[in-house]
Amino acid sequence: MAKLYFRHGTMSSGKTLNLLAVAHNYEQKGERVVVIRPRLDDRFGAESVVSRTGIQRIADVLVDVDSIIDRKILQGVACILVDEAQFLSCDVVDQLRQITWDLDIPVICYGLRTDFQTRSFSGSGRLLEVADTLEEVKTVCHFCNRKAVFNLRISALGAEVDGPQIELGADDRYRPVCGPCYHSHTNRQNQDLFGD
Amino acid sequence: MAKLYFRHGTMSSGKTLNLLAVAHNYEQKGERVVVIRPRLDDRFGAESVVSRTGIQRIADVLVDVDSIIDRKILQGVACILVDEAQFLSCDVVDQLRQITWDLDIPVICYGLRTDFQTRSFSGSGRLLEVADTLEEVKTVCHFCNRKAVFNLRISALGAEVDGPQIELGADDRYRPVCGPCYHSHTNRQNQDLFGD
Amino acid sequence: MAKLYFRHGTMSSGKTLNLLAVAHNYEQKGERVVVIRPRLDDRFGAESVVSRTGIQRIADVLVDVDSIIDRKILQGVACILVDEAQFLSCDVVDQLRQITWDLDIPVICYGLRTDFQTRSFSGSGRLLEVADTLEEVKTVCHFCNRKAVFNLRISALGAEVDGPQIELGADDRYRPVCGPCYHSHTNRQNQDLFGD
Amino acid sequence: MAKLYFRHGTMSSGKTLNLLAVAHNYEQKGERVVVIRPRLDDRFGAESVVSRTGIQRIADVLVDVDSIIDRKILQGVACILVDEAQFLSCDVVDQLRQITWDLDIPVICYGLRTDFQTRSFSGSGRLLEVADTLEEVKTVCHFCNRKAVFNLRISALGAEVDGPQIELGADDRYRPVCGPCYHSHTNRQNQDLFGD
Repeated sequence: MAKLYFRHGTMSSGKTLNLLAVAHNYEQKGERVVVIRPRLDDRFGAESVVSRTGIQRIADVLVDVDSIIDRKILQGVACILVDEAQFLSCDVVDQLRQITWDLDIPVICYGLRTDFQTRSFSGSGRLLEVADTLEEVKTVCHFCNRKAVFNLRISALGAEVDGPQIELGADDRYRPVCGPCYHSHTNRQNQDLFGD
Repeated sequence: MAKLYFRHGTMSSGKTLNLLAVAHNYEQKGERVVVIRPRLDDRFGAESVVSRTGIQRIADVLVDVDSIIDRKILQGVACILVDEAQFLSCDVVDQLRQITWDLDIPVICYGLRTDFQTRSFSGSGRLLEVADTLEEVKTVCHFCNRKAVFNLRISALGAEVDGPQIELGADDRYRPVCGPCYHSHTNRQNQDLFGD
Repeated sequence: MAKLYFRHGTMSSGKTLNLLAVAHNYEQKGERVVVIRPRLDDRFGAESVVSRTGIQRIADVLVDVDSIIDRKILQGVACILVDEAQFLSCDVVDQLRQITWDLDIPVICYGLRTDFQTRSFSGSGRLLEVADTLEEVKTVCHFCNRKAVFNLRISALGAEVDGPQIELGADDRYRPVCGPCYHSHTNRQNQDLFGD
Repeated sequence: MAKLYFRHGTMSSGKTLNLLAVAHNYEQKGERVVVIRPRLDDRFGAESVVSRTGIQRIADVLVDVDSIIDRKILQGVACILVDEAQFLSCDVVDQLRQITWDLDIPVICYGLRTDFQTRSFSGSGRLLEVADTLEEVKTVCHFCNRKAVFNLRISALGAEVDGPQIELGADDRYRPVCGPCYHSHTNRQNQDLFGD
């Protein structure tokens, strides 16, 4: 029976690169994948799935919070891959969960676990509840090389502790950080720590 | 730097047995652990941490949703172990998170990931967000031997889909189940499937 | 399709306790498991599988290096559990590997990864090659509370660096240790470091 | 204390891509990595580390079976990355192991677990024994989409079961396969199964 995977990681952990590599492997075997992403995030244009390394591809399906995934397009598909899965609605996650059972197609979701205030997003919160397998895509802390766990949001004034959950187009304002560095920076906010 | 672990598993996956084994290993080395549990759950008496195999010990600290953990009792402690961590409040999880950073004591939390409706509890939801490491304590589905992921609640009438999140003293009404079996049983509820 | 698992860990990491818990879970569901152990290791009597916590059961099958596992006894079995799997011969591991494919019965092997000189045993070496899943049963270093990775053998004179690979009945002469502690102790051998 | 990682996977599982992404992440932070590869493997020229996706870089150090790694070049290095680590000699693995302890630099080794006959290589065998952390880089079976575990070597005549362990420049003759597919193909060798 096909499974639902949540491969979570911080900003810049290589999640999209991992997604593109999985797509590449299936396609080399002559099999078809479907790449889904939330419409919400249009950093790189409405339909592109782009890794920071420069590799990219076009998403096959864009979903909104109230989208109903069309099962006709899933016929003969070997794997469903979801980029930026943290932005999915609970309802779309539940549809993907159902698809693994009804259609026996594995679904691999890549996304952030939490926002800059250490709270889950709608999609990541639901995936943490219902995924068959939780896998971590690891990277190192921006400051100290321990494993990164949190996403720090910074401005010219230092670490931000308040503000809207999502600020699209602001990728350069996030840093993957470990717990101790997250704690020390959010507690001494508004200091110019980010001369780097 | 000490870490916060969330070792999640379904009902009957051996979480408490794992906790007791960890405590045993530290104590054999002459080191002290502190065992914490929420007061909420008094299945086996207010203070006992009991594995289904029969091994048990007394919890050192009982916490309520608004408890402030007394750091004096943590002096010289090698490890903090938490049983039934799904019932912790977010605030207590945040205190434990802080303790790993301030006191450099590892905290290992054992608990359910989700309730019988596949929703996280207060404690497990927060641990899924902020733990350094998510580890699964695995067991097999009651019906089919795939890996269990969900907790099915049953009554004489079959699977339950509605009701209060917590029904203490009702352990024998839960079954660890895989996704497909959870789905098939909650969709044909009120049928007497549980003659076993 | 059933899988072959190798759950490896150092001395005192709770491998046997984990095995007994898995057996218990299957049997509570009314299913049958078969517990196998190598005859070589008769620390606790030829046929007992004993956890340091005191829980135990009798092994169903004892295997020698040249045993042919009788498939008749595996009829209707839900799971095969192997204790002290590091002592299996390569050939017996290959039979177990084959059983997962021919009979579709999962095989979970518990054992040490390496000996006191950091070399694999016959069984663990083969399992590290052919298991579908490698899972670590974790415990902490005897000296410093980092994760244990190696097994240190000690005598009244300190850490041992030479000697036979297997010394049965000498469990109290092993300590689970992390890499740095293994290194520092084997490099200053023959000093009385073990007053504890 | 820095750790030694072995990230093992079958052919075409994305190991080198993962390595290149890790290097990229460190370098974006302004930190230096050293990339090591065995000289033995000169598929793509003596010094290139190339992912099948096309991304590549030049290895900083080529090692032979009897190389002594020059520690002077490791000064100020944040991470050591090893490609094709299965081809390292045991002795070079032991040097890398020692470097994590002496210089406190993490070493991440990427490589195959086993050859086309399911036997470990010199480097992978030693890494399976002494790595602090074994992590699997996953991909799917060429034939059936289960997780790949073995590497099948094929010729115009079908699966090969005999021959030299290493055939460089023959990457297109390997397929990542699951256990059941490995078994079924090697047992009906010399049949033209590979029309694809």
